[in-house]
Parts: sequence; structure tokens; C-alpha cells
Amino acid sequence: MNQHHVQLLMTGNELMSGDVIDSNSAMIAQALKDKGIELIRKVTVADNLPHLVEEIQTISKQAKVLIINGGLGPTVDDLTAQALAMAANIPLTMHPEALGHLEVWCKQRGVVLNEPNKKQALLPQNCQIIANSVGSAVGFELQLNGCKIYCTPGVPSELKVMLEQVLIEKLSMKLALKNKTDITRLQVFGLGESSLQQLIDEHLPDWPAEIELGFRATRPQIEIKLTSRSDNAATLKRQWLAKLHLLLGDHIIGENDSNLPECVLSLLTQKHATITIAESCTGGLIASQLTQISGSSQAFEAGFVTYSNRIKSKLLSVDPAIIDKHGAVSKATVIAMAQGALTVSEADYVIAVSGIAGPDGGSIEKPVGMVWLGWGDADNIQTTCLYLPGNRHYVQHYAAAAGLDLIRRVLLNSDDEPYYLQERKFRST
Amino acid sequence: MNQHHVQLLMTGNELMSGDVIDSNSAMIAQALKDKGIELIRKVTVADNLPHLVEEIQTISKQAKVLIINGGLGPTVDDLTAQALAMAANIPLTMHPEALGHLEVWCKQRGVVLNEPNKKQALLPQNCQIIANSVGSAVGFELQLNGCKIYCTPGVPSELKVMLEQVLIEKLSMKLALKNKTDITRLQVFGLGESSLQQLIDEHLPDWPAEIELGFRATRPQIEIKLTSRSDNAATLKRQWLAKLHLLLGDHIIGENDSNLPECVLSLLTQKHATITIAESCTGGLIASQLTQISGSSQAFEAGFVTYSNRIKSKLLSVDPAIIDKHGAVSKATVIAMAQGALTVSEADYVIAVSGIAGPDGGSIEKPVGMVWLGWGDADNIQTTCLYLPGNRHYVQHYAAAAGLDLIRRVLLNSDDEPYYLQERKFRST
Repeated sequence: MNQHHVQLLMTGNELMSGDVIDSNSAMIAQALKDKGIELIRKVTVADNLPHLVEEIQTISKQAKVLIINGGLGPTVDDLTAQALAMAANIPLTMHPEALGHLEVWCKQRGVVLNEPNKKQALLPQNCQIIANSVGSAVGFELQLNGCKIYCTPGVPSELKVMLEQVLIEKLSMKLALKNKTDITRLQVFGLGESSLQQLIDEHLPDWPAEIELGFRATRPQIEIKLTSRSDNAATLKRQWLAKLHLLLGDHIIGENDSNLPECVLSLLTQKHATITIAESCTGGLIASQLTQISGSSQAFEAGFVTYSNRIKSKLLSVDPAIIDKHGAVSKATVIAMAQGALTVSEADYVIAVSGIAGPDGGSIEKPVGMVWLGWGDADNIQTTCLYLPGNRHYVQHYAAAAGLDLIRRVLLNSDDEPYYLQERKFRST
Repeated sequence: MNQHHVQLLMTGNELMSGDVIDSNSAMIAQALKDKGIELIRKVTVADNLPHLVEEIQTISKQAKVLIINGGLGPTVDDLTAQALAMAANIPLTMHPEALGHLEVWCKQRGVVLNEPNKKQALLPQNCQIIANSVGSAVGFELQLNGCKIYCTPGVPSELKVMLEQVLIEKLSMKLALKNKTDITRLQVFGLGESSLQQLIDEHLPDWPAEIELGFRATRPQIEIKLTSRSDNAATLKRQWLAKLHLLLGDHIIGENDSNLPECVLSLLTQKHATITIAESCTGGLIASQLTQISGSSQAFEAGFVTYSNRIKSKLLSVDPAIIDKHGAVSKATVIAMAQGALTVSEADYVIAVSGIAGPDGGSIEKPVGMVWLGWGDADNIQTTCLYLPGNRHYVQHYAAAAGLDLIRRVLLNSDDEPYYLQERKFRST
């Protein structure tokens, strides 16, 4: 199969059992992608010799390049060299260069080169060594059925160095690549995957095929990825990216790994302004998301987790009469919470949240998922009421994201009305 | 190939590109292993129709069961239903049961069922539905070449519920398993994997082979899993579980999915007691972890995120002279923060945290990772200083967990000294 250029074979009992989550293959894929090399297929098997031999034989007949990861170590379940030798029907021999590496490695650490360690130099005859500058097991490469096979260590730190120092260069040369892959990632909040798809279908129906469009839900954000693979497509992409920006407006948080807390902090820092958060149903989540970012102390001094009515009055001076009359989950209460937080903290901006995260505490008038948000500054506190679907975790996280998004729009002087306010707007007083 | 009973096919451009690290396959593998079902092979491909069709056809001829994960959503790159229909050479039809599920799902959320969403009900003719109680896309199953194929959602929370509620049961029946597997999971805090292994090797050297012992780091907790696979081993396991409890004492938080915030809340509720949190470097993380639990309002009323010195004094009445003399990260300051939080909130118990989460703000005397914790009640506030390795995320999360663990030990009237206090104890005043 022609497209099956580069494949990956992951080996390890711990990967198959799920005891370890495989992050190596993502590391390899990302390093390849940065060079415009697309990984087409990945197979994972346990440390089982017949299975390994079968996969190597099959893949070597399909692919131009096969990267094998894992199984280079000294223990009995490290089988890669043996499997590759069997698949290629060649003997294992003690490889002088690999043995030399082991001797130096042991000497530097003052340890004796024992038999299990020596096994790491027992490699398929005539294979070429791939240097490992940080570990005992070298990598190696071999040609089989017209496929170049690279064997790499399973220890992530060793794999990383081998990729960066040697392997990516080897692969680029092997595949004689001129890298023209150009990727733009946009982070979006407030539109679901299906709404996004529909908006694009309706408003940009002639979206060009040369620009691959992908969506990824990172809850509550969505990532849009635009990939082009040739020089003219890159120019075309910039044009369509501009159209996408026009269509989605301030629903776009930013490019690459932008997220709402970082974006809000960065806008605040630019303005030399500070923010305070008064949280009831989100219980400190917004404060926690902001303070997870290093440098947040420049814009964030004080957060209030005011779960009970008593504490809302005591910490934020919310008039008990307001809570009595309108309830804790009400427009009047979030306004009073926001004003109180601004006064006590002396911050410039505020987000206040009061809602019913569930699963208990809902009623017909105030169902689970109903969340009042207040945001703004001392001159203008805006409010909205969202009716959020889903479980407690979703309600809390969506409410936190919406609060951050709404203050972001204030900081941007945005005029757009966010889609989620049109869809989930306050339906009754 | 006879051993290829159960295989897994993962689909998604984001998995192939390495943009997302695949944790779903580990979740599936672990759920299968708990029932004694071994996963034998895993193939990952991008959202590419011909590749998906080819893999489905090939695997269906090898395996007794194939689980496909991902590609059930509403967007154009969700191809699983189409690929399965093509592989089986049957048409796609609008499935009434799936459509009904979508209609109810949208109605409950007050959203319109649009065309992209409807696509999720376009399924291979005569397939059977697998209920999805938490998402819009149902799963479905089909027999092909003697292989039973189950299609499951890529959203981890939806996959988890489908596995637990339906799929594992279906698989056990399909594979006609007499399940004698008996699993006990213990949640542990304050001991690393290698320390745990060493403790068990030293104190329980004759650990029986019939009881498989596994560790899984869930940061900052560790899970210990004891698995037995026969009736007599189950009895033996209870005996050795008791020995393990004696050895590890109150480092064991509880069984199954116990975690520190839930355990603390449950102990407080039993005592009809309340807690308050005064957080500097954890920035609301402890409050957020407590309030993520439904029913937390019974024991939690007030949290204070006091990032700056000014706010520590203003909200918690910490004497500015104390901060001037000892610094914000000091024993005297966390004691004053704890006392202030108790006074303002009128809660029974308190956790106070002040530290340097990094990466900036460290010095030789007070390095990054130095965290002062204060905890207790109005009669007795204890303190300790931890020196935590790792990045900002780790320091914040470990400090939050240690604070919760220390108050848990107070609530339990525990006499054990936790291992991490011996190891990382306060080294100087």
C-alpha cells in the first residue's frame, strides 16, 4: 500500500496491559510532523516473539520506513533484536561497536559489565548502530524487504535524545524530504464541534480541499487545525484563515496552545490591571486555573470562595435581604458579590459566579445547571444566566470558562455577542 | 492466528499526529484485564477511510473481538460508521433508536438537532445499538467474518461509562468467561512506587505468587492493585491485604476510587464539622478539589485565596509585622493565616498553605518547592515545611494533597507519622 510510508511498532507488556500510557509514540509523531513526515499507522504488541516477528515481516512489506520502539534493554522480555533477526532470517552476533559502548558506559559508572547487560550488544548481523548518548542500549538499523527499520529505546529520555540528535536527520535524508507542511492551530471557546462544522458548511461552503480542516474537543475549548502541504496551499491557507477569523470573531481565543486563563492573564498584564474572583458554585476553580500559571501574582491577588449565604454576606458584604428576596442564585446576588469582591480586593476587574452545579439543589424555577455570572469593573458589571447541561464537573468547568471568556471580551473591547449567550440566554426572571 | 482473540483499533488524526496522547486504550486494556481478558494487539490509524476499511477487514479475519474507539462524532472526520459499513459491504441507514437518543439528548439541552448531529444516527444497517448514557453518539456492534465488532466513543468520559455500564459485561458474555478474578484496589498517599516496593520486599518477603501485585502512579496518589484468579486465592488475598494494611497504616486512604478530598469531606460530615482553606501558592486548588464533590456545601463554606501579602493581612488579619519579620513563606505566617481563616469563617478545621510554587520567586534560603503547611483546629494548629521537587504543577498538587492528608490524619486521630514528613521534614528554622 503506497501511502504506508512510515509506520511505528510499539512493543511492551506494560503498554498492552494499560499499566503505562504510551507517550513515546506521540513524541515520535510530533518530531516527525515537525519535519513534515506523516506517520501513517501504529501497531502495538506485547513482548511476544512470534507476534513481533509477524508484525515486522508484514510491515516491512508495506512501509518505506518502520520505527520500532522498546525492547532494547537487558531483561528477558526485551526481544527487539531477536525478533528483527528472526524476521530477516539472519543470525544475532555480538556487535563490537555496541559492546564498546557498553564497556565505556559501565566504566564511567564504576559498574561491572555483566551478562544481562552484554545482551544489549547481541544484535542482528551487519546492522548499523544508532548512537545512544544517554543510555546503555544503542539503537540499530537494518534494511528488510525494501523497508528501512530503525530500532529505538523505550526509555523516554533516551528516545528523545536519539530522535533529536540522530534519527530525525536520518529520516529526513532517507525520505529526501522538502518540508512544506504548514499547520495552524486555533483555540476556540463557545461553539461546539457540530455548530462549528455547520457554520463553516453554511458560510464557507467552498472550503478548499488543499487545506485540511480538523477539530479536536479539548473541553470546554475546541481546537481547529488547518494543515496545508504545499507552497501555494500555504498562501491559500492564509486567505481562508482570515475568512475563518471573520466568521468566528472573538470565539477564537488564539493560536497554538492558547487557553482562556492564560489569555485573560496576558490581557490584564498588558493593561497593568488586576482581577479578583468571587466564586460560589465553581468553588475556587477559576482562581485555581489562573494561579496555575506562573507569573499570575502580577494580576491576581485575591479570590473568595463563598459557598454559604452567611459567608457571601460576611466576606463580600452581600446584603442578606438581597439573598432573602432573590435567592443566592440570582442576578442581584452575583452583582452584589462582584461589587463586594472589587471593594475588598481593590482589584480592577471581577468575575462572580453563583449557580447550581448539581446533582442536588435544583428546583423547577432554578434547575441544576443554572448559573448566574457577573463580570466587569466598578463602572459596569454585566450579568448573564446560563443553563448548562451535563454533570457537576461539566457545569463547573463550563461556568469557569464562560466567566473567563466574558471578562476576556471586556478586556478586548469586543462587540461580538458570544454564541453561547444567544443559545443559552437567560430565559426568565 | 489463534491468540489474536481481542484486538483494538484506535482512530483519530490527533492520535496519529501525537497532538493527543492516547489514554483511552489504556483505560480499555485495564478494564479488560480486570475481567481476565487479555488484549493482544492494538492498531492506530488516522481518520482515513481506506485505511480504516482495510484494518477492519484484516482484523475481523484474525480476531474474535474487535473494539474500535473514536470516530463516532458529528464532524466529517468521524468515519467509523462509514468504514464499518464499507468493510462489511452493507449500506448506512438512519437508525431509529440512535435518532431517538439524539432527539432526547438535544431536547434535554434545549438545542436544535442539526444535520451534523443527525449524522451520528447514520449507522450500518442492522447493527445493534450500545447505549451511551452521557453523550450524543451511541455505540454500535456488528458481526463480520466471525468477529464481533464494538464501536465506542472517543470522548474518555463517555467511553468510561459505556465500558462500565455495558461493554465489559457484553465482552464477558461473548467470550464466555467464568470470571473468578477478584481485584482489590487500594489508594495510597505519601509513599512513592519504589519505596512501596522496597517496604513490601523487606517486610512481606514471602508475598504469595497467587496474588498479583501491581502499582500505578496516579499522581500524587498511588494505586496498589491485588489480583487473584481463583477461589482459594481470594481467601489468601484477604489475609495478605490485612498484612498490607498493618504495614502501610494510614498511608492507605481507602479502597476503590477513594481520594483525599472525598475522604476528608466524608470524615467532616460524620463529625458534623466544617473546614476552611487559606491558600497562597495553591491558589484555590484545595477549595476547588473539595467543591468538585457533590454535597461539599455541608462541610465547606468559605475559602480564601490570599496571594499577596496585603490580602493576607486584609482578609485573614495576618499581622504585617509577622510577614515583615519572617516572610510570607514561614511558619509564623501560615499559623496566622490558619487562625485568621478560622476566625473569619467560624469553621471547625483549617488548612493553610504558603509556599514557592515556582518557577520564579525562589532563593537560597527559600527555594522553589518550599511549602509551609498549617492545619488543625482552634486549639491546636500544627505546621510542617515540605521541600518538594518538580515543576509548578507538581508542587501545587502535592502541597494540596499533603494539606488534605494531614487534616485527614487529624480527623482520624492518627498517631502514625507520615513517611513524607520523615523524608522531607523541616530542615531549618
